[in-house]
Amino acid sequence: MTKADETKTRILDAALDEFSTRGVAGARVDRIAAAAGCNKNLLYVYFGSKENLFTVVLEQHLVRVYEDEPFTPDDLPGFAGRVFDFAMTHPDLMRLVAWSTLEQSTHFPNGRAASHDAKIAALAQAQAEHRLDTEFSPAFLVTTVMSLASSWSAAFPFGLAMHPDRTPPPLADLRAQVVQAIRRLTSA
Amino acid sequence: MTKADETKTRILDAALDEFSTRGVAGARVDRIAAAAGCNKNLLYVYFGSKENLFTVVLEQHLVRVYEDEPFTPDDLPGFAGRVFDFAMTHPDLMRLVAWSTLEQSTHFPNGRAASHDAKIAALAQAQAEHRLDTEFSPAFLVTTVMSLASSWSAAFPFGLAMHPDRTPPPLADLRAQVVQAIRRLTSA
Repeated sequence: MTKADETKTRILDAALDEFSTRGVAGARVDRIAAAAGCNKNLLYVYFGSKENLFTVVLEQHLVRVYEDEPFTPDDLPGFAGRVFDFAMTHPDLMRLVAWSTLEQSTHFPNGRAASHDAKIAALAQAQAEHRLDTEFSPAFLVTTVMSLASSWSAAFPFGLAMHPDRTPPPLADLRAQVVQAIRRLTSA
Repeated sequence: MTKADETKTRILDAALDEFSTRGVAGARVDRIAAAAGCNKNLLYVYFGSKENLFTVVLEQHLVRVYEDEPFTPDDLPGFAGRVFDFAMTHPDLMRLVAWSTLEQSTHFPNGRAASHDAKIAALAQAQAEHRLDTEFSPAFLVTTVMSLASSWSAAFPFGLAMHPDRTPPPLADLRAQVVQAIRRLTSA
């Protein structure tokens, strides 16, 4: 890794932390540069703008998700369980996604909509081939699986965020219920 | 209504608009005062701080929700349909709830956690009296109903926000599927 690559990596790590905590509008390039131990001008040279840096950070981590969590139309309950695991172990990334949705000041990563559409297409094919119950539309199922599997993340309003000071239910119980809920919704 | 009450109402309306668009950190008291046609100092006299004004706005609207959408443990599908209707017709309030979860800079309205706990208690009682299937825990059901019913709001990442430029599926279809999904999850 060149020295420039090392600096970029440190900036991206510091940016994930800053953006996850404060969003795009609240983030300060000064703080990211200080945390990365580099000159603020270098950050602009490498990433152009604060907004562009946010998109790069989000895209970098989402690409990892698409690669690590392959979508399986024939095992939606299992997929939901893995999304749940990811959401609960990566609160910082769930917060990035939530900020991005609310702030709308940054370029939407191309990969995100494409990955969503690919899931819809895979479900439509599974329904056409009678491998999946057809009561729910493919678009409805994708939104439902993703929302339900991430609903307990503290980045969203109706799960752990409801009682930040209280001991949450055991994660294994919540996970089992997420998997079972998607099983109920997808078995004929 | 006194003149002071009229001014307060104009401030609260302007604040809903500003906070919904920009969150607490991004909101400017100057803009709220200008939109309300009042002096900025008056805003501090009436509401103390920007953060407190946010809490007052959120609480004001959430109280209306608790009163308008009574929770019915014996008809969770119907309740989910009404929450869906509310979420889709009040994107500004859904955004307030989402900002509040992410920014964590404001006092959490007392009514919100209390309303959530009351729903859990009502479901626990319905399960104890064999009026409701017991496969899912009361806490899981409340989080699931609220998350699923609001999942299509553009304030959250996996519904309409995924394709802001595309014609969304007909709302009546989405609503019917939300209701049917909760029916599947709650019938033995």
